[in-house]
Amino acid sequence: MDNPSRFNTFAHTFKYRSPLWIESDSDLSRSSENRSNSDDSVRSDSSGSINNYLDSKIPEHHQSTASGFSDGDNTQDDNNALSDEERAKTPLRSPRRKLPRRSRSEFSMDDEDYSPSNSVTSVNSLASLLKEKLQSIPQKMRKKPTDYKLRAFVLLMFLAVAFFIGFAYTLYRQKALTKAYFESVQFNEGKRLIRIFNRDDIEILRASLAIGVQNKKKSFPCLPEHRRPDGSICLEWQEDLRFYLKCLPHDPGVDNTTCYSVHWKALRNDLAPMDCFDWSETKVHWYGGGQSANLTWPLDSGSIDFTPFITGDMQKNQFGNVLTRYLINSKGAAIIIDEETPLYLAVNDRKKQICIKAQFDDFAFANQLTEFPELKYNICTSLDMKSLHSSIHSHSRAPLWDGLKPADMQTLESLISEPVWQIAPRFKHELQAETISKYTEDVIDLGFLKQGHVLINEFWQNEIGDFTVDTSRFKTLNTTVDKLHRRGFKVAFTIQPFISTESGNFAETVQKRLLITERNGDRKIPALTRFKSVDSAGVLDATDQRAHAWIYDKLQIVMDEYHIDSFFFDLGTAYDMPHYYRCEKRLINPDQYKTAFVKAFEKSLNIIGVSSAVSLPRPPMFVSLPPFESSWEALRSVIPTMLTYGVNGYPFIMPGAVGGDIYWPGSEQFLPSAKGSLDSNATNATQENGIDLPEKELYIRWLQMATFLPVMKFTHLPSKYNDERVLEMAKNLTILRQKLITPLLLKYKREALEEGLPLVRPLWLGAGGEASLLVRDEFTIGDEIVVAPVLYPNQTTREVYLPAGLWQDGIDGSLRKGNRWMHEYRVPIHRVAYFIRKPDDMRF
Amino acid sequence: MDNPSRFNTFAHTFKYRSPLWIESDSDLSRSSENRSNSDDSVRSDSSGSINNYLDSKIPEHHQSTASGFSDGDNTQDDNNALSDEERAKTPLRSPRRKLPRRSRSEFSMDDEDYSPSNSVTSVNSLASLLKEKLQSIPQKMRKKPTDYKLRAFVLLMFLAVAFFIGFAYTLYRQKALTKAYFESVQFNEGKRLIRIFNRDDIEILRASLAIGVQNKKKSFPCLPEHRRPDGSICLEWQEDLRFYLKCLPHDPGVDNTTCYSVHWKALRNDLAPMDCFDWSETKVHWYGGGQSANLTWPLDSGSIDFTPFITGDMQKNQFGNVLTRYLINSKGAAIIIDEETPLYLAVNDRKKQICIKAQFDDFAFANQLTEFPELKYNICTSLDMKSLHSSIHSHSRAPLWDGLKPADMQTLESLISEPVWQIAPRFKHELQAETISKYTEDVIDLGFLKQGHVLINEFWQNEIGDFTVDTSRFKTLNTTVDKLHRRGFKVAFTIQPFISTESGNFAETVQKRLLITERNGDRKIPALTRFKSVDSAGVLDATDQRAHAWIYDKLQIVMDEYHIDSFFFDLGTAYDMPHYYRCEKRLINPDQYKTAFVKAFEKSLNIIGVSSAVSLPRPPMFVSLPPFESSWEALRSVIPTMLTYGVNGYPFIMPGAVGGDIYWPGSEQFLPSAKGSLDSNATNATQENGIDLPEKELYIRWLQMATFLPVMKFTHLPSKYNDERVLEMAKNLTILRQKLITPLLLKYKREALEEGLPLVRPLWLGAGGEASLLVRDEFTIGDEIVVAPVLYPNQTTREVYLPAGLWQDGIDGSLRKGNRWMHEYRVPIHRVAYFIRKPDDMRF
Repeated sequence: MDNPSRFNTFAHTFKYRSPLWIESDSDLSRSSENRSNSDDSVRSDSSGSINNYLDSKIPEHHQSTASGFSDGDNTQDDNNALSDEERAKTPLRSPRRKLPRRSRSEFSMDDEDYSPSNSVTSVNSLASLLKEKLQSIPQKMRKKPTDYKLRAFVLLMFLAVAFFIGFAYTLYRQKALTKAYFESVQFNEGKRLIRIFNRDDIEILRASLAIGVQNKKKSFPCLPEHRRPDGSICLEWQEDLRFYLKCLPHDPGVDNTTCYSVHWKALRNDLAPMDCFDWSETKVHWYGGGQSANLTWPLDSGSIDFTPFITGDMQKNQFGNVLTRYLINSKGAAIIIDEETPLYLAVNDRKKQICIKAQFDDFAFANQLTEFPELKYNICTSLDMKSLHSSIHSHSRAPLWDGLKPADMQTLESLISEPVWQIAPRFKHELQAETISKYTEDVIDLGFLKQGHVLINEFWQNEIGDFTVDTSRFKTLNTTVDKLHRRGFKVAFTIQPFISTESGNFAETVQKRLLITERNGDRKIPALTRFKSVDSAGVLDATDQRAHAWIYDKLQIVMDEYHIDSFFFDLGTAYDMPHYYRCEKRLINPDQYKTAFVKAFEKSLNIIGVSSAVSLPRPPMFVSLPPFESSWEALRSVIPTMLTYGVNGYPFIMPGAVGGDIYWPGSEQFLPSAKGSLDSNATNATQENGIDLPEKELYIRWLQMATFLPVMKFTHLPSKYNDERVLEMAKNLTILRQKLITPLLLKYKREALEEGLPLVRPLWLGAGGEASLLVRDEFTIGDEIVVAPVLYPNQTTREVYLPAGLWQDGIDGSLRKGNRWMHEYRVPIHRVAYFIRKPDDMRF
Repeated sequence: MDNPSRFNTFAHTFKYRSPLWIESDSDLSRSSENRSNSDDSVRSDSSGSINNYLDSKIPEHHQSTASGFSDGDNTQDDNNALSDEERAKTPLRSPRRKLPRRSRSEFSMDDEDYSPSNSVTSVNSLASLLKEKLQSIPQKMRKKPTDYKLRAFVLLMFLAVAFFIGFAYTLYRQKALTKAYFESVQFNEGKRLIRIFNRDDIEILRASLAIGVQNKKKSFPCLPEHRRPDGSICLEWQEDLRFYLKCLPHDPGVDNTTCYSVHWKALRNDLAPMDCFDWSETKVHWYGGGQSANLTWPLDSGSIDFTPFITGDMQKNQFGNVLTRYLINSKGAAIIIDEETPLYLAVNDRKKQICIKAQFDDFAFANQLTEFPELKYNICTSLDMKSLHSSIHSHSRAPLWDGLKPADMQTLESLISEPVWQIAPRFKHELQAETISKYTEDVIDLGFLKQGHVLINEFWQNEIGDFTVDTSRFKTLNTTVDKLHRRGFKVAFTIQPFISTESGNFAETVQKRLLITERNGDRKIPALTRFKSVDSAGVLDATDQRAHAWIYDKLQIVMDEYHIDSFFFDLGTAYDMPHYYRCEKRLINPDQYKTAFVKAFEKSLNIIGVSSAVSLPRPPMFVSLPPFESSWEALRSVIPTMLTYGVNGYPFIMPGAVGGDIYWPGSEQFLPSAKGSLDSNATNATQENGIDLPEKELYIRWLQMATFLPVMKFTHLPSKYNDERVLEMAKNLTILRQKLITPLLLKYKREALEEGLPLVRPLWLGAGGEASLLVRDEFTIGDEIVVAPVLYPNQTTREVYLPAGLWQDGIDGSLRKGNRWMHEYRVPIHRVAYFIRKPDDMRF
């Protein structure tokens, strides 16, 4: 597109035009900005050369109305092809013919780029033209003194006009580069800035694309062989990147969500396509993605450098145990990144950007699926955040209830309504049949708690990966299990896909080639890893059918002999995979392993939970929160983590044990040795199995919060404190849960199965209001109960935000007006702040 | 260096010079070619500007005599600094002043590169000058007709002279780039061609250096900070390579060897310095380096692509189990490559080049010791190949006898004089105390063979890495060993640094962190490998003192309990290391592991041999040849392999078993399973331990050859054939060995310990002659017996080459004249061709 020469004809034409034209030009620039429908008016009075120019510049949906004109791609050809005769026949091009006396070359400025200095030149040439004209005025006229005034005035007029042209043109040029695509996407090719608007023409997303590519670099339309038949817009920054943008089809009758597909293909190896979403100019908050020690709630309040987007331990790695490639902002725009993208994510709260990048490396994205990295994602928009969220989570797959058996539904309901008793000692020798039996007796002695699920950690085996009960410690485990069943408990065993090199199964699986191997040549040597306290372990290849069969056979024997009810899958995080892993089938990234492993058994085994996930497991599988240390800080991170997982599309979340978990990432350092024994002197008053009981106040506050969570998990029983008040509080909370919370959770279970909405939600997902966007220490059950637990030691007051509506105070039963902050709200140690929504018309 | 402008002054000056000058110029160009000492004559009559030019061009040793002149580096500065006044004072620059009437600019051709077309221009300008001059001759003179003839003649003269100048300059320029360094090294900087001459001025080595760097790229002297204080020549190809060349000091009184150090430093990461040694123009043969399936004897008869120079199995990898970074050619030049160089080697018999390259990769040279790859080697030359060889091998370390204990000497002698009985069944269960006992009984039953060393493979343990006797199979091993001792045998156990994951020691060594770990972060996860029939094994970290102590303790218990005499170290090859290995101390390459492991135990344990080596282990350790299959092809490769190892500096070589080894690389495929059992039906007439006996003729021919080798190793006893003739032959060969060969080997053992010369040598190391350079099916013991075994089936004749001298035929006792080929020499099946050197004056 030879713009300077066009500018020429543009300037050239102007002399014969009225000031009115300028208005129509600025109209036009506005029109391209605001996508008004003034095309026709522009067309009707603009000259041929302007039209010529517009042909290549007007956005696509404008062009579609301009039938009869050639389209942007071959404007230039048409120009050349038009002979003078043809021009004569084309009325719209006639203005050119009003200048018969001047040859074209006089105004030729070809081969010069347009720049401010060029506009000065054009002004000069206009001035000289003017001078020439004035000189052609008869000499006599010039002698009149008033003529000078006139001349000065005309000169001034001309200068003013010239200035306006220059200004208008500069403005126009900049706007012209910004094209409007589809209905509500604006894309500036020069700056590679994309802006997306909602139906009310409010900007909801702004992104700088392809950061790192030279800023002034020009884009070209793709070659025909690179275009796609699906109507994608295709642009290429030569030797750097190719860009596809497409509006995904949707049925406006069914929902209000519109999605756009963005696809960057790098054209060389050292270029990592990187897009940044920006909230520097619009006030917007981001949620989703994953939990990180540096990122709290909302995402934009934290900061992390570029990190591969794979699961890990928050203490050691950047992200937590549950991730979704899904980000949503408070204006109602979401980004859903393709699972094949080798995704790196960064959040910069100083620059106010969330950036995503596609880049290969030697672990997380070592299996290069494409020659060069590709960044592929969808941007979805809807009326608001809530409808967007539920439309994404309900439409991206079949509803969750699809295929759910009555037994599964029962398990799901029992996990919500009954506690989970996590028996997870730190050392193998601490787990005995008697330990389990004693624990359940203690539960029954409490008198007020339901029996629920007894979840036994990996120490039912002698070594991780045995998949057989350690008969040296459990001589009569089946009688123990039968006793538990008679008492009303269900029993779940934890299993892992790891096989300790000390397990007898290691040799067998090596020989049968069931383990993940080292990524190198054809040696097929098992690759080892470290998992929890196991110094060296192989990993069963989850992509290998034979490995599934092998595991299933082993577990079938356990189920047959011990009548185990279900299993809990402890899958580790991506960083628990061997660094140089290679599976039978190529994994996109190490997290895909988990999905494959769960998929393999979701139909054949009863699985009550998984420890880590990157895609939603079938119900009744719950997704665990990461294990938390027993500390106030950990208590405070439970809510944001839970809310993030809910936003990420995991409705059924299993939090850790009340008071904190015994085994949490980083706790290895407190273990004298995986094989060591603390033995006898480990049964103090405040100790259980050699572990200190959590601080009493922390335990109480944690219990208060846990009462409102989807699953209540215990490791330490309240009776261990030998304190009547603790027992009393626990009893009251149990009654509260059984009477009020459980029915409500069961009610919202239906919405979860239907629409993917979480049981426990952030305030903004209900009738939140602007203030609720930042609240990270409250949550709602469905949208009926707002819970505001105390999360700091020695505090009996807290700030409470109530969303819009009418609320009944859970402590004193009074009614409260919503949509406001309640300061220094009193919450004594034995109470927990919660508010029940009441109908708006109910006052007294 | 601004040559064109120099050329200008050069051409400029010429007009006033006599033809004599041209001669002195061609003199000069010759002088730089032949390194004659005509400098002074050149100096005395050349003009200042010529001197100016020479200053920057003459080789360094010329410059050293040219005191008073500025050196090449600042010629230009000096030029500019000289003001006109100064010029007037400098008599050598006076010719310039003979042209007062002409401004300098008239002749300025600055900024143009010198090229043939430029020389035409200069000729033209000379011609125009001439014309001008002629025009200045008085008009009257020109009217004479003879004047025209004169003018034509003068013109012709000028043209001729101009042509000569052009030609001489071109020639000079090319030669000037070839500098002579030290006494006998020529280096052409432009082509980067190095030529090394011996004392008789015969070219013995020619190499193209820095292949891959742009050919015409200019070199510059190094910046002062990059120069070395040791007097190295330093050149830099900017942004590519830096080059150091140095003559290493030596004492000419002690030996005649001169060495030059060559050191290339790459200046960017993607450049691999590569030098190629070339025999396309000189007829020369190369030896040493390593054995490869594609490289026989000499090296230049084969061809391999660039391969990392690390040990491997010849069947699977490029190189064999013993390597030295040492190449020697038949003209008496050797290349010794620094062990820190990440060395790749290629031999191209079509281009007639051996190329070496420094390049990092992810396994062999993953531990980057320098920022960018560096290629560092010495070129050594001497009078001839033999003196070069012994000077290199005797001087590069203390003599081998240094530190040798009497017991070591005894072991050394017993290994030469007594057979080694290798008991190496394919399956663990085949090795029992009774097997060993029975085998030794069979040996004694033979009656004629000495007892020697019983070498038991790794199956004395239950799993590789147990380091304890498998008591389930060896309930009374100590009584068996005592019995063997009473019978006169010595017992050696094979040990490996590998620990099978099925060994009980695996868990222990993982926990104690004694194993080589995965090269990644700080995870310290053991890296596994495959070794022989073991599917997964860890590797003890040979660089870790604690691992040494751990192994030693284990072995001490075995020695104490079972009175084992010695050990054989089966170390595997570099490719048996875990691919992503990392040791406590950084290894230069995976082969260094072997050296570290052997060094750790060479003083504390009795070690009779190692399976693989890259540096000479202390005597009495013998270095094994690679295991060979039982085939005629394998038989033929024994001699070249053995000779290569001898040339590489390993005098004490232990060949494989007579008739071929049971376990050779690639034999895994014949094993039904490492754990499988063939059991009962495995004892046919021609089978032993389930292995077919070697073909009878092959066994006989192999036995004939083995009789002359440093060590005689048996797996299959000759009695197994149940053939009296075989037994008879074996008996005769045994007598021959005991009477003739053993004393000779023991005699040359002394030379080996003193000078590093091998016991068994190629013909050329004695009085070979040109023809012997290619002989790969004969060898000599010391230089006294030439052995020419038959290596093809069904043959009773062969071609025999006898080196110069007088030889007594071993078959019929006749005298034979040497330095000739004996065609169709008859060798019946029961005889072996060997020739004993006799004093030249002994005829009859």
